[in-house]
Amino acid sequence: MIKAGIIGATGYAGEQLVWILNKHPNASIEFYCSHNYTNVSFDNVYLNFYSFIEDKCIDINEAINRLKDIEVLFISLPSGNAFDIAEKALNLGINVIDLGADFRLDSKEVYEDWYVTKHKAASLIKNSIYGLTELNRDKIKECNLLANPGCYPTATILALAPLLKNDLVNLNSIIVDAKSGVSGAGRGANIANLFTECNESIKAYGAPTHRHTPEIEQELSKIAKKDLVISFTPHLVPMSRGILATCYANLNIDTNTEELLNLYREFYKDEYFIKILDTLPETRWVKGSNFCHIGIRVDKRTNRVMVLSSIDNLVKGAAGQAVQNMNIMFGLEETEGLEFISMVP
Amino acid sequence: MIKAGIIGATGYAGEQLVWILNKHPNASIEFYCSHNYTNVSFDNVYLNFYSFIEDKCIDINEAINRLKDIEVLFISLPSGNAFDIAEKALNLGINVIDLGADFRLDSKEVYEDWYVTKHKAASLIKNSIYGLTELNRDKIKECNLLANPGCYPTATILALAPLLKNDLVNLNSIIVDAKSGVSGAGRGANIANLFTECNESIKAYGAPTHRHTPEIEQELSKIAKKDLVISFTPHLVPMSRGILATCYANLNIDTNTEELLNLYREFYKDEYFIKILDTLPETRWVKGSNFCHIGIRVDKRTNRVMVLSSIDNLVKGAAGQAVQNMNIMFGLEETEGLEFISMVP
Amino acid sequence: MIKAGIIGATGYAGEQLVWILNKHPNASIEFYCSHNYTNVSFDNVYLNFYSFIEDKCIDINEAINRLKDIEVLFISLPSGNAFDIAEKALNLGINVIDLGADFRLDSKEVYEDWYVTKHKAASLIKNSIYGLTELNRDKIKECNLLANPGCYPTATILALAPLLKNDLVNLNSIIVDAKSGVSGAGRGANIANLFTECNESIKAYGAPTHRHTPEIEQELSKIAKKDLVISFTPHLVPMSRGILATCYANLNIDTNTEELLNLYREFYKDEYFIKILDTLPETRWVKGSNFCHIGIRVDKRTNRVMVLSSIDNLVKGAAGQAVQNMNIMFGLEETEGLEFISMVP
Amino acid sequence: MIKAGIIGATGYAGEQLVWILNKHPNASIEFYCSHNYTNVSFDNVYLNFYSFIEDKCIDINEAINRLKDIEVLFISLPSGNAFDIAEKALNLGINVIDLGADFRLDSKEVYEDWYVTKHKAASLIKNSIYGLTELNRDKIKECNLLANPGCYPTATILALAPLLKNDLVNLNSIIVDAKSGVSGAGRGANIANLFTECNESIKAYGAPTHRHTPEIEQELSKIAKKDLVISFTPHLVPMSRGILATCYANLNIDTNTEELLNLYREFYKDEYFIKILDTLPETRWVKGSNFCHIGIRVDKRTNRVMVLSSIDNLVKGAAGQAVQNMNIMFGLEETEGLEFISMVP
Repeated sequence: MIKAGIIGATGYAGEQLVWILNKHPNASIEFYCSHNYTNVSFDNVYLNFYSFIEDKCIDINEAINRLKDIEVLFISLPSGNAFDIAEKALNLGINVIDLGADFRLDSKEVYEDWYVTKHKAASLIKNSIYGLTELNRDKIKECNLLANPGCYPTATILALAPLLKNDLVNLNSIIVDAKSGVSGAGRGANIANLFTECNESIKAYGAPTHRHTPEIEQELSKIAKKDLVISFTPHLVPMSRGILATCYANLNIDTNTEELLNLYREFYKDEYFIKILDTLPETRWVKGSNFCHIGIRVDKRTNRVMVLSSIDNLVKGAAGQAVQNMNIMFGLEETEGLEFISMVP
Repeated sequence: MIKAGIIGATGYAGEQLVWILNKHPNASIEFYCSHNYTNVSFDNVYLNFYSFIEDKCIDINEAINRLKDIEVLFISLPSGNAFDIAEKALNLGINVIDLGADFRLDSKEVYEDWYVTKHKAASLIKNSIYGLTELNRDKIKECNLLANPGCYPTATILALAPLLKNDLVNLNSIIVDAKSGVSGAGRGANIANLFTECNESIKAYGAPTHRHTPEIEQELSKIAKKDLVISFTPHLVPMSRGILATCYANLNIDTNTEELLNLYREFYKDEYFIKILDTLPETRWVKGSNFCHIGIRVDKRTNRVMVLSSIDNLVKGAAGQAVQNMNIMFGLEETEGLEFISMVP
Repeated sequence: MIKAGIIGATGYAGEQLVWILNKHPNASIEFYCSHNYTNVSFDNVYLNFYSFIEDKCIDINEAINRLKDIEVLFISLPSGNAFDIAEKALNLGINVIDLGADFRLDSKEVYEDWYVTKHKAASLIKNSIYGLTELNRDKIKECNLLANPGCYPTATILALAPLLKNDLVNLNSIIVDAKSGVSGAGRGANIANLFTECNESIKAYGAPTHRHTPEIEQELSKIAKKDLVISFTPHLVPMSRGILATCYANLNIDTNTEELLNLYREFYKDEYFIKILDTLPETRWVKGSNFCHIGIRVDKRTNRVMVLSSIDNLVKGAAGQAVQNMNIMFGLEETEGLEFISMVP
Repeated sequence: MIKAGIIGATGYAGEQLVWILNKHPNASIEFYCSHNYTNVSFDNVYLNFYSFIEDKCIDINEAINRLKDIEVLFISLPSGNAFDIAEKALNLGINVIDLGADFRLDSKEVYEDWYVTKHKAASLIKNSIYGLTELNRDKIKECNLLANPGCYPTATILALAPLLKNDLVNLNSIIVDAKSGVSGAGRGANIANLFTECNESIKAYGAPTHRHTPEIEQELSKIAKKDLVISFTPHLVPMSRGILATCYANLNIDTNTEELLNLYREFYKDEYFIKILDTLPETRWVKGSNFCHIGIRVDKRTNRVMVLSSIDNLVKGAAGQAVQNMNIMFGLEETEGLEFISMVP
């Protein structure tokens, strides 16, 4: 059993992590750390666990004391808060999986520009591995500081990787129009995320300066082996979970939908969690699962390709991929504890 | 492995059954029968199963031919449609679990009155067992025709059983005000259930003549050992899943919330799926699980007790309880394949 | 033109008041007072008014200075905050319409018990009129301090008044099971009201000690001319607006649905805003309007009557009724500015 | 009073037309024609009009008989159904406003290609005017056959017109990623539009062959005075109403957000219904109104502009614009009957 600790256990991604690890055959949760619910039993915060998880949430100081009990630390905090605790854990030889953004960007400067905060553990950046599992599996095996990808980047990079790897599109033509459920905004008490503010409305937000932009560009550039910039526009949709990324690019070649479907199926043929659909993806089919559904359409009239990918922002876009990475880091089957299928409706 | 067949596999309860059985450690699905999707592969109807269940749906005639391959038949059809197929399966020695209403009522006459249709297999009624697992476990062990309870009756009877068993309330004072998500209305193409008709609205429907009324009364009367009538009013709520039953009754005795909580905890102390909360239940905590959460409040001012119970209408209120019953009928652990916890948000 | 000021203009009820008064043919809004948005232009808070209402919100001190400019003051604040400003306005001869609870209860003691706060303007209570327009119209004409009813009380009292006035039900048998959209919880930054906490769930809350209970009992007792207590249970429904009150009572007499429909139609025959339906009400039909729809069912089996009423909590349950009362207080047509019909879907 | 008849009065756009005309100061509805609800009183179909519109719906034959009573005929039918009735009405000298697609495309061939049906009134095409009011006002004044724009085209064309008129973008670079509420799918009994199928999910559909594509291209080409093709991808969002069009294009020039905001404000400076926001639009602010909100962002990194426009699909995207056009055709104030503001939340 891999002994895990969770920092930020009562946020949405944290809770999802609890849900997954709680039934993981080879992992156990040693502590639940929560700033807002210190001393409250976990099942009093999330009553879906009523009578199943009666451990009290602990504060960060107690979590530090208990680092010695664990082998892996999951950090699920707002950006800018993972530096200290990650460093402490690493110094003790504990593997760290950070679900936040603090170790995703290769460049301290880019981080500080986009996140408008000082990076306080820059020396760790070079050791961190960007944990988009399907693309970085080999490096993940060796790493002890894993930067778990953002939800939008996960959906986007999985959608575009086969095109870029094969040099099929104009690198300056990429537009990503993404849509997310409200859980992506976190569990903070914020008027903008009240039911009555989000219900019956859709809006774009953050564009063109959303913080996931440099993360997507960094990883896509690596795949393309050439620097690129993209347009990235996230939207907030009145649903709890799910991300749909609608990605557009101008084709370099003359092709069609069928050919690209085949290319994608070949590219992802060994991937358990990636499914290439003939139809267009809908977030409901992956809600509550670690799967990514991808659909493709070539438009001959514009010679443009549209790739749509859907994931659950809290699973493949956060806690699920984190556990997928943990499995790899610890030599387990990659799919362990993650084979649950979306429950519809 | 218990070999199962499903009639009505592409309805909401049918699909939920597939979801559960698909990962049940001791059951396998031998065929998927669907009137509307005959010859369509199951994962083309429900893309959450994409690439996992590629079996083609079969029609009722082929299902009949394949009865010989199975040990248990789940029937998930609209009322009035289970008679023939149930009879055929029973004649072959196959256990039948009917998720519909055709074998729930002890009286052919009551059935025909409330369902306004002829009962075409009345001779089977006396052998059928009403499968509210927690209350009828012993009989379920022996039965081969199981009438799986309705969603509203499940929530209501679990809420009221401890009161009636202990003769704590006036039997003529029971009022059940129930609320359900829209999946309870089924997957028929029906204007009243369109998104734009249900969204942003709540309504009562069917009262005071909803067909679950005699089912609830029959079972509560057995528990109370005295005939009783209730007021039962279902409401349609703009959410996909979940039932909340708010039950009111006049107390016979002088008691308080604390005492009744203790009584309920004692009553259900061996029940894995029943949880007695200190707080008031919310359907989200049980959504997608087989659990039933119950909350209680005594109002000293009116000497009335209010018991609220929440379940997922498609799980504990349909497919989950059906599998719970299957487990018992086949001598398995009752909780097998059913230990999944609600995923929130 | 009646000159109006609004305290609490950026809450949901306040904004609804702005919406109505903004197009009222005989009223003008002189100032918008908002604690949280002082100095922000109103149309920057509510962009539905973009370019139409560019007035800056003012703070309470400036509002006090500007009392001299107005003839009516609407107060839409959380309970316990209306005392001072109401007193100041009344002293200047300004009519006050309080949308909160501070002047609804006839008894200072009952107020202090249920609201757990000191009543700081008890001397004003005796002059305040409870503004359930249809029942108190004559007194409203004369009053200068109007206590606008709560949303739940409005729906409940309108549903039950004809029964109580005619002594048709057992006064100790009344149970009100009410359901509300989330806007009823206000616009405070509160985790419990986040989209992801309310969506896809229903719960009861506050029962049996919700603060609208004594208000309902007080008014029903007046109608019945006899003290009574009720069971009142509010529920939170995943929709933005709307209240449905499902009211149960034991009949004193032998009657049927048809007779009671006639009695209700007679009772409310001169009421523009009350509609007695043959069908059961749905909140969508009154959403965004000042109408109240009422449906009735007699259940012969239990000799119980069920009356369902639906209103929009922010209109007939708050701002709409407030303007209806203003119209009466100022001798205008009661329906002025309020004839808009629900927009569906 | 302009006497109007409505064909298709019980669909969502038809009902919205009823809502608007019902309180229009200078129009009256002479008949309500509905295939599905013939002989049912209108307020029994839409209970928001309970007791206000008790006229019985009539069938198409009776509607033809009553053409002589009207001055304007609104047709709100699925595509391919307006030919005969439009022709009959025009022959009687009645103005026709078609909310469907049958007269929007200038080319019979393009129509027949995209709509896969024969155009049965091709001779009328040349006389029809495309009713995007803000851009075609002068022609609308003179016309008697008005082709009311589609919902997506309205949002898109208003968003892009200022750019194209001023030749600011690369014509081959336009991508429109649009999102719509479910009412856009109509009121047909269709499994795909059930609450439980649409709720908690988002999907793209129809791309890249959605029928609004040639309509958008035709009108944008006229504005640009040069043929162009676009990528157009509609998405279905779990909300009842609203469209958000997120439009991307590569800039021809070096500019910034501020400059373009000014250009748009100048371009639309006389338009009552078009509002240029500093912030990004949200559909809730225009829901239930005839307004169009537009937001703009220039991304210097990509030298791309993003224009977002939001409308209510049933108002500015259908019935509202139809009445706006009627007002112009009949010499009324353009805003008459259309000045209602969105009601939030």
